[in-house]
Amino acid sequence: MSILVVGSAALDSVETPAGRAEDALGGSAIYFSTAASFFAESIRMVAVVGDDFPREHVAFLESRNIDIEGLEQVTGGRTFRWGGRYTDDLNSASTLFTELNVYGDFQPRLPQSYRDTPYVFLANINPELQLNVLEQVNRPKLVVCDTMNLWINNSRTALMETLENVDILILNDTEAQLLTEESNLISAAKKILTYGPSRVIVKKGEHGAMSLTETTFFSAPAHPLESVCDPTGAGDSFAGGFLGYVASVGDSSEVTIRQAIMYGTVVASFNVEDFSLNRQRDLNRAEIDRRYQELRESTRY
Amino acid sequence: MSILVVGSAALDSVETPAGRAEDALGGSAIYFSTAASFFAESIRMVAVVGDDFPREHVAFLESRNIDIEGLEQVTGGRTFRWGGRYTDDLNSASTLFTELNVYGDFQPRLPQSYRDTPYVFLANINPELQLNVLEQVNRPKLVVCDTMNLWINNSRTALMETLENVDILILNDTEAQLLTEESNLISAAKKILTYGPSRVIVKKGEHGAMSLTETTFFSAPAHPLESVCDPTGAGDSFAGGFLGYVASVGDSSEVTIRQAIMYGTVVASFNVEDFSLNRQRDLNRAEIDRRYQELRESTRY
Repeated sequence: MSILVVGSAALDSVETPAGRAEDALGGSAIYFSTAASFFAESIRMVAVVGDDFPREHVAFLESRNIDIEGLEQVTGGRTFRWGGRYTDDLNSASTLFTELNVYGDFQPRLPQSYRDTPYVFLANINPELQLNVLEQVNRPKLVVCDTMNLWINNSRTALMETLENVDILILNDTEAQLLTEESNLISAAKKILTYGPSRVIVKKGEHGAMSLTETTFFSAPAHPLESVCDPTGAGDSFAGGFLGYVASVGDSSEVTIRQAIMYGTVVASFNVEDFSLNRQRDLNRAEIDRRYQELRESTRY
Repeated sequence: MSILVVGSAALDSVETPAGRAEDALGGSAIYFSTAASFFAESIRMVAVVGDDFPREHVAFLESRNIDIEGLEQVTGGRTFRWGGRYTDDLNSASTLFTELNVYGDFQPRLPQSYRDTPYVFLANINPELQLNVLEQVNRPKLVVCDTMNLWINNSRTALMETLENVDILILNDTEAQLLTEESNLISAAKKILTYGPSRVIVKKGEHGAMSLTETTFFSAPAHPLESVCDPTGAGDSFAGGFLGYVASVGDSSEVTIRQAIMYGTVVASFNVEDFSLNRQRDLNRAEIDRRYQELRESTRY
């Protein structure tokens, strides 16, 4: 079944201990869509770029069967650019520069053909825009949402309204703590369930992830990685693998969700092996399934 | 099959956000033995106390069928006392005082009846004493060892010699990083395998544990705890549950080891629910098995 994603398209300049990439393809909608394309047949993207956005990137998205009718190209505009540096702690980047450019005026407009999409991912954008997207879709089957410190700190009212209208919130451990003011992650996750989502998925980096509903708890292992080339896009690749798999199965049962979390984990673990989306470019489903099985084996007892 | 443990017996004074305990039963050998007693029939303890060690504590150990022939009682001596405070970060205590007393001159002497014990746990004592214990046992089946920052920093030569002679090292994440000077935990664990142990188990607190050999990797979830009363003894309770279960099965296959890690996790999770060994005093095997099943369920997909 189809997935709608609304997020950013960017050109990233990244420095890590492993090297650097300049003006490389990035952005939450791009990472998400590419990861989801390993599983789902139809992915509909809403994002905005300038007319400096390389044609090869558009061709790449098309080669993945990603519907870019909703990818707005602003004539005379410049694409969103982000520069960041990761030092030894690969969990957090220091931002070197942010050029919002056309992304600063982003007003997601859904093409008519997108409005009945059953699976919706609201990537990490201003919660007011997330709400705006929700007004444009017709009774989606499942709405999944991401957020970040910036919105938690500066747009809490709109964010809380978004949360009332989503089914699943995916966020990382420090974001969960900041959002709830609870240092214990289980307590934080339970509190988030009172905000609206019926499920929360907390990502813990090298420690894996956990998923909570009112009645279920799932502890997901991380793939044991000895080195990370570039963490950029790991979270969106996780979300893409996750929702791509859910949409491919077509239900949101606990077992599907758990398998989906592990597929998200696997795609994210591949993504960080190289800069930008380079690893995903030559990745195939057989490699994904092999790592999925290895990870499954590493938790069996 | 029988287990030998060599470690400390102590009277602990602990402050945590949940309250305080004064001169409460503690020490690595005590926590280990009590936890192991839920599984193994025969536990042989070597430790030292003064004649101030309350008779009720001796009676408690006997009630658990723990062999205390090796519990030396020094006439006119005073029992090891430790005082510590845990603040919001329940992962590390600040030591308020350490009175080594009779423990300062501890020279483990194994009763003749202990020398053929097949399963050996060298609790967190000076590695020179750990080596001394290994000289007193006859070809044990499995030797498991713990250590801490103090010995890694101050007694590295003896510690490395101990490691050459043990089968399994259990330690926590920061100790593994300190011992190997590797920040990545997978790399750290792999390096430890080159020091002698054929298996390393790295404890990660609320993030569970992992076990590595040259050919296997196991990712163990933590029990999802919302509050911790007193973390003291969690590590030794983990080791006790772990080795108690291994000894009860009588083999060290990968599947037994994985199940044992989960039993260790469960006993440790109960232990931190109250001060000292209070929770273990009224704990029963059915409760342990129930939580073991819950934890198993939380990783299935």
